[in-house]
Amino acid sequence: MANPIGRNRWAIAEGYIPEGSNGPQPEMLSHETVCLLNTGDDDARVSLTIYFRDREPAGPYAITVPARRTKHVRFNDLKDPEPVPKATDYACVIESDVPVVAQHTRLDSRQAENALITTIAYPC
Amino acid sequence: MANPIGRNRWAIAEGYIPEGSNGPQPEMLSHETVCLLNTGDDDARVSLTIYFRDREPAGPYAITVPARRTKHVRFNDLKDPEPVPKATDYACVIESDVPVVAQHTRLDSRQAENALITTIAYPC
Amino acid sequence: MANPIGRNRWAIAEGYIPEGSNGPQPEMLSHETVCLLNTGDDDARVSLTIYFRDREPAGPYAITVPARRTKHVRFNDLKDPEPVPKATDYACVIESDVPVVAQHTRLDSRQAENALITTIAYPC
Amino acid sequence: MANPIGRNRWAIAEGYIPEGSNGPQPEMLSHETVCLLNTGDDDARVSLTIYFRDREPAGPYAITVPARRTKHVRFNDLKDPEPVPKATDYACVIESDVPVVAQHTRLDSRQAENALITTIAYPC
Repeated sequence: MANPIGRNRWAIAEGYIPEGSNGPQPEMLSHETVCLLNTGDDDARVSLTIYFRDREPAGPYAITVPARRTKHVRFNDLKDPEPVPKATDYACVIESDVPVVAQHTRLDSRQAENALITTIAYPC
Repeated sequence: MANPIGRNRWAIAEGYIPEGSNGPQPEMLSHETVCLLNTGDDDARVSLTIYFRDREPAGPYAITVPARRTKHVRFNDLKDPEPVPKATDYACVIESDVPVVAQHTRLDSRQAENALITTIAYPC
Repeated sequence: MANPIGRNRWAIAEGYIPEGSNGPQPEMLSHETVCLLNTGDDDARVSLTIYFRDREPAGPYAITVPARRTKHVRFNDLKDPEPVPKATDYACVIESDVPVVAQHTRLDSRQAENALITTIAYPC
Repeated sequence: MANPIGRNRWAIAEGYIPEGSNGPQPEMLSHETVCLLNTGDDDARVSLTIYFRDREPAGPYAITVPARRTKHVRFNDLKDPEPVPKATDYACVIESDVPVVAQHTRLDSRQAENALITTIAYPC
């Protein structure tokens, strides 16, 4: 790629991991994902900060997206420095040392049939 | 955060609170939400204005998003100066005295299985 | 509003009105909508052009969004100069003489439970 | 159109073709689509590059969108230089020699009722 693709900072205001799931796992587990794309030739060191309604932010959560790779990170799987609580409103800021593209997706399988949402995150 | 994240004004053109719900409440109540993220060190004083098809706008609705917090506001819960009517087309402008990020989500549970939509609002 | 909100031109690349519906009508009729918000003090004269896979574009479709109003226009209801065909890929350009905000939504009720999508249109 | 509409490069970070489908095909086949709109008077020569989690990118995939036309391309249908694998995280960069608009959609029919997502791609 001639020019770097993406931005160094992105935000997602809508975060919520539904509590409860229907269907085979892991694919039908209710989850939220931030999808990161690094088209560049250098690995991206990405840091997530999670914001809450009633407490100070959590993080940073460290993620590496190798050069010319995509990584789809489930918030459910974040463990360090602490898990992201279920059924809790949150939001997220994504910071990277090289430009990346960020997109947010949720699969909600609390009811028998799954529902999906996605949006490109807000570049900032 | 070194630089402020977000914008002082956002718009959502698609507003509609479905009439009727299925499933346990409050989580499966049909609703629309504006998710606000304030990453800054000052509280955000946010004002919503609701636009309609056939009458003058309603508002302002006053909301405070504390510093380093997110607030997910259900349009269903707005009361002052007046409730937002159900099953009625509307739109919304969000104004804040400090930069915030805004995202719009709907959960529609009029049928047995819920449907979801989301989009980052339009920064303007 | 101090400054005009929105843009004079928007595009939606994904257009498709599903053929067939389940549930009570008109609310559960499969449909696509462009939601327009005009926060200004002048009426907006909006013109839609519909693009297809295999023929020249159709339009213009003329719509007025009064000052300080929102209008949610179902593509299903467009008649002049010609209806928008069902089960057919299309795309749309929205042009307005004053700034407006445009958002695109589909309700798909071909199966028993409805599915929804939305996105802010592309400002251009 | 007086001015060209769109951009020469777009990115989609969230790619995933669900494995398995319910309902009549091809319309209810689980699929992902990139919708391209070319409002200009010259054909658009579009090239897709697909990024993965654990291997080098695939492509380019060559697509022509004729002047004043839209083309909705299912990733499921891409064959040359290689098919896009199912149930695999991927991402996509879209490059065009003339401005186009790009939007991303998924229909997931792994369960009995379909779920849908869409977003305007990230212009870059």
